[in-house]
Amino acid sequence: MKTKAGIVGFRGYSGAELIQLLSRHSHLEPVLLEHRDAEAEARPIGRPGPIRAPFSTETIKEQNIAVVFLATPPEASMDLSGPILGAGAKVVDLSGAFRLGTVENYKRWYKEPHTQPELLEEAVYGLPEFCRSRIAGARLISNPGCYPTAANLALKPLIEAGAIEREHGIVCDAKSGVSGAGRKASLKTSFCEVTENFSAYSILNHRHVPEVLMASGIGEQEFSFTAQLIPIDRGILETIYFRVNRTITSAQDLLRIYQDRYGDEPFVRLYKPPYVPDLRGVSRTNFCDIGINFDPATGRAVVVSAIDNLGKGAAGQAIQNANLALGYTESEGLL
Amino acid sequence: MKTKAGIVGFRGYSGAELIQLLSRHSHLEPVLLEHRDAEAEARPIGRPGPIRAPFSTETIKEQNIAVVFLATPPEASMDLSGPILGAGAKVVDLSGAFRLGTVENYKRWYKEPHTQPELLEEAVYGLPEFCRSRIAGARLISNPGCYPTAANLALKPLIEAGAIEREHGIVCDAKSGVSGAGRKASLKTSFCEVTENFSAYSILNHRHVPEVLMASGIGEQEFSFTAQLIPIDRGILETIYFRVNRTITSAQDLLRIYQDRYGDEPFVRLYKPPYVPDLRGVSRTNFCDIGINFDPATGRAVVVSAIDNLGKGAAGQAIQNANLALGYTESEGLL
Amino acid sequence: MKTKAGIVGFRGYSGAELIQLLSRHSHLEPVLLEHRDAEAEARPIGRPGPIRAPFSTETIKEQNIAVVFLATPPEASMDLSGPILGAGAKVVDLSGAFRLGTVENYKRWYKEPHTQPELLEEAVYGLPEFCRSRIAGARLISNPGCYPTAANLALKPLIEAGAIEREHGIVCDAKSGVSGAGRKASLKTSFCEVTENFSAYSILNHRHVPEVLMASGIGEQEFSFTAQLIPIDRGILETIYFRVNRTITSAQDLLRIYQDRYGDEPFVRLYKPPYVPDLRGVSRTNFCDIGINFDPATGRAVVVSAIDNLGKGAAGQAIQNANLALGYTESEGLL
Amino acid sequence: MKTKAGIVGFRGYSGAELIQLLSRHSHLEPVLLEHRDAEAEARPIGRPGPIRAPFSTETIKEQNIAVVFLATPPEASMDLSGPILGAGAKVVDLSGAFRLGTVENYKRWYKEPHTQPELLEEAVYGLPEFCRSRIAGARLISNPGCYPTAANLALKPLIEAGAIEREHGIVCDAKSGVSGAGRKASLKTSFCEVTENFSAYSILNHRHVPEVLMASGIGEQEFSFTAQLIPIDRGILETIYFRVNRTITSAQDLLRIYQDRYGDEPFVRLYKPPYVPDLRGVSRTNFCDIGINFDPATGRAVVVSAIDNLGKGAAGQAIQNANLALGYTESEGLL
Repeated sequence: MKTKAGIVGFRGYSGAELIQLLSRHSHLEPVLLEHRDAEAEARPIGRPGPIRAPFSTETIKEQNIAVVFLATPPEASMDLSGPILGAGAKVVDLSGAFRLGTVENYKRWYKEPHTQPELLEEAVYGLPEFCRSRIAGARLISNPGCYPTAANLALKPLIEAGAIEREHGIVCDAKSGVSGAGRKASLKTSFCEVTENFSAYSILNHRHVPEVLMASGIGEQEFSFTAQLIPIDRGILETIYFRVNRTITSAQDLLRIYQDRYGDEPFVRLYKPPYVPDLRGVSRTNFCDIGINFDPATGRAVVVSAIDNLGKGAAGQAIQNANLALGYTESEGLL
Repeated sequence: MKTKAGIVGFRGYSGAELIQLLSRHSHLEPVLLEHRDAEAEARPIGRPGPIRAPFSTETIKEQNIAVVFLATPPEASMDLSGPILGAGAKVVDLSGAFRLGTVENYKRWYKEPHTQPELLEEAVYGLPEFCRSRIAGARLISNPGCYPTAANLALKPLIEAGAIEREHGIVCDAKSGVSGAGRKASLKTSFCEVTENFSAYSILNHRHVPEVLMASGIGEQEFSFTAQLIPIDRGILETIYFRVNRTITSAQDLLRIYQDRYGDEPFVRLYKPPYVPDLRGVSRTNFCDIGINFDPATGRAVVVSAIDNLGKGAAGQAIQNANLALGYTESEGLL
Repeated sequence: MKTKAGIVGFRGYSGAELIQLLSRHSHLEPVLLEHRDAEAEARPIGRPGPIRAPFSTETIKEQNIAVVFLATPPEASMDLSGPILGAGAKVVDLSGAFRLGTVENYKRWYKEPHTQPELLEEAVYGLPEFCRSRIAGARLISNPGCYPTAANLALKPLIEAGAIEREHGIVCDAKSGVSGAGRKASLKTSFCEVTENFSAYSILNHRHVPEVLMASGIGEQEFSFTAQLIPIDRGILETIYFRVNRTITSAQDLLRIYQDRYGDEPFVRLYKPPYVPDLRGVSRTNFCDIGINFDPATGRAVVVSAIDNLGKGAAGQAIQNANLALGYTESEGLL
Repeated sequence: MKTKAGIVGFRGYSGAELIQLLSRHSHLEPVLLEHRDAEAEARPIGRPGPIRAPFSTETIKEQNIAVVFLATPPEASMDLSGPILGAGAKVVDLSGAFRLGTVENYKRWYKEPHTQPELLEEAVYGLPEFCRSRIAGARLISNPGCYPTAANLALKPLIEAGAIEREHGIVCDAKSGVSGAGRKASLKTSFCEVTENFSAYSILNHRHVPEVLMASGIGEQEFSFTAQLIPIDRGILETIYFRVNRTITSAQDLLRIYQDRYGDEPFVRLYKPPYVPDLRGVSRTNFCDIGINFDPATGRAVVVSAIDNLGKGAAGQAIQNANLALGYTESEGLL
């Protein structure tokens, strides 16, 4: 018999992806937890899909739910996490509620006070490639943002190795598919506004910037970030520019740093320079693909980092975290 | 009676755009010059379209063609320009044949020798906002590349005003619709390879880079450029990052530099910070739209520059140049 | 000095197309009539665009507005038409308010009572190819629906010529771009729901069906219609199936019927069988393109009819109607 | 240890889908059989992917390959099937080589003589819902075409039940994503030609028509079929129109026929009228989804049938067939 995993917010794009991914998981099966009223939907006859139940601590106990994925806005995540933990389940929160470390930081970027400072302190940042051991023992895991996942996996090894001349600045030009904006109807994500268009938003001012800085150790003065909307459903590609330190004289040198760091990682794939990944290659996967270009004449490098924003950028990484927290093979259900 | 304008390469995307734009021009009418064999095409009955004639110097003389647009590969442009000029017509060349100033530069970036060094010397670079008076008297106009047009219109005023701390580097992250790759069938531009994808190419190594450097005065050491493919038909958006000089303390300061430079320009439009343009706003126009973001805390700026790659990036600018060369109102047929 | 044309609902897709088309009209200039509160918008600096004024009968009189385009929902069109006519301007209504001839019909398909039965009686159906003379003298013109325009231009000549074996049924399989659904944010027209999807709606039950039947003379028993959503911005393509009468023995016979009927029409284009039009060919035009396929072995024919839903299906045809009503050349501003 | 399944034509879209699906199969693992010269490809470092070997009967024997999937053009399938069978492996052919029953039929629709008449006779048509027992014992399985799969699953139960008034004609308006055209570069499937477009092709004349007629028992006189290109990657939706027999008085009656026929089928899903499926619901699945609309006032019905052209329309169904032929659970690797 499989262990039960609750999903709150299962009608959103991350929630739907969780259902889809858990349908192939050997040990977990999804339970859809109704947090708001249900609407009628077109469904094939006689194909019931996963169990549904109203969200409550009773449901969690009765159904013996081991982990709950919160694919909810931060306000809801703050409200629901405590009761779920109290009912004995672990929480993987896909919102920004527990990512920014301090209540001050949260207030600055989310413009609202944080209502659960103790949980904020307890929460473990769920980037497995860098926080694996802490995740294994955590009750409350804060699943990283989509943009920061792609940025940090590309930048953190280079920062740690001292390969970047940081005072010259690091530019991260980020592009995302529209599902990153969530499933709420909005003129900005209407088909006719997005198709045959391309636009920048939250320039130098995106909520995900502090998360990149915190996790990577880059300073605010050193970093420029722009988010942009690609007319596609899913995928994030970040083009990252910097000047290297004198210790680096070839793309191979940069590749070696990544290989040393990610040698055995199941979900980070590296390309041989000058090849770089595209979004097609990571679509519907939990991979983060990284490619490097370097010009020895100028010391300038360009790193391309690609993920599926609903995969490694949300639901896939959430399951990777749940696998770690529940003691399963880390890649279970994700390859 | 209208003056005749020849188009060679009228089946390509730039050529088709020239036909479309000239259909609304008060003084010019297109003559399609068949340079290769014609294929059968589906066409509405009884709607003949523009005049067609075989390409030859005789045709140019007999039809009294005043200007020929070359929407051809550089090799063809090198071959055809001399004979056309000899037949008494002006040439606006949309290829890269005459953009790079010297035969050495051409050889370095196009990997082939330049066959017309004298014409290369004669050719005038057709960026009207900066070369207007020379264009007016030119016989052979080299229409700028699409990426350099968007980059130079955004960067040149700031470089001239000394507003950029150039030693910290200038990053130009460029994205283009697929029509920029031309109309030849290729797996790389096949629908299924492009849709729901996004990919980078020619990283730090694009043929358009020397054109940006030549026209803007930026040094090779200072500039990083990546070209990327958006799954849309047309449009170029460039996100440009730099650190400002101490004379600049607000987005308003940068806006003022642009306003001083472009006050009366018919085809450069500026946005009030922090608004930035998107591709929808420039689609099927000859405008270059520019928007500015600035973070006083870090001195970092982001400029967004948007054009239609077939408009201001090719056919539209070509007509703007022809208007100047033939003495018409510069914006004729383009508003 | 140009004559003024008011636009109510200018923020919607049809309204924006009216502004765009009128910018090239020799005799008309747009006045944007604010009917609801304005929102802030990103706009290029120093490019004011068309005149804006609050909607009122005073504005219409003071500005000397000759015609008002109503790009509004039917309820608003019913409310506004009377006052506008009273203020001395003509009305071209792009909604369904005045298309269905009788209050009973309106009630049946719009589920609301018609509030202006007298205006309903007065309104002239604005399909110029069949109602030209009445349009010329009309005060209130009901601009046809997008689907009915494509269907009726394809079917009416064949029905009139008795070329179709109607008792075997006529099938109209219709596909539309998303702009046909209007600009209101809705989950159904959200990018991620539409891209890489294709869906049918209002099967056998669409509001546009009675309009096809009324204008073409086809009986309800004889006609099947399905509307479907293509993941594109604009365009309608209808694939129409029927069995021919014995008088027809070739595609040429069907073509001749169309040619006899549409010989001099400026906006109907015919293709030589077996060529058929696609949406690319009519995009951003006021054309309706028609192509024919016929299988003599079975007597079965397929006609493909294509328009731009915002062109001949809305704003273009509205201007064609205004041109007729105001005595301008019918194609003014539309070629 | 897993059983080996060869794939010829693994670089095409169907081939790539076979690799993807087999990566999740409990009993089969793919061996990529190089039939033409390999090209260099960008690949992540250290992620070798499936075994590759040159195509030869020796490889088939040495690798102990139990089944070979031919994702090749019909000419190649005719050439390769005999040798593969001779080497002791079964064949599932995804081309049209063995679908049309007789050499005359093949000649008529493929314009070339059939070179393997004996294999043509031996081949079993692989539509499991109707040919399950014959597939189980077959050596050479002809995998159905994509359009015929969607059409026959929707039509055959109704034909068998005598529910359709066939003399009034059956219209099948079919739409396909671009991957149905294969991966060869072609102007017709270039991004800029397809995006924001929609076009019909092979009207009343498509190679898949005889396959529908043969499998369903519908007569040539009774059937109209048009194929159309949707600007999406994958998916086929067919809108099917007919008039019902007097025994049918409600959509429920039609639904019951489907339920009686498909009660336990793992890969046919039915919708409750008036709901109909869309392409999103079948994307990347092996399902065929069917929905029904019916108008009792006119006796006219519309059935919508949706599949993924690379799933149930090609690779998915091919694996379903291989599962049957090799004695595995029919849905293995497909749910």
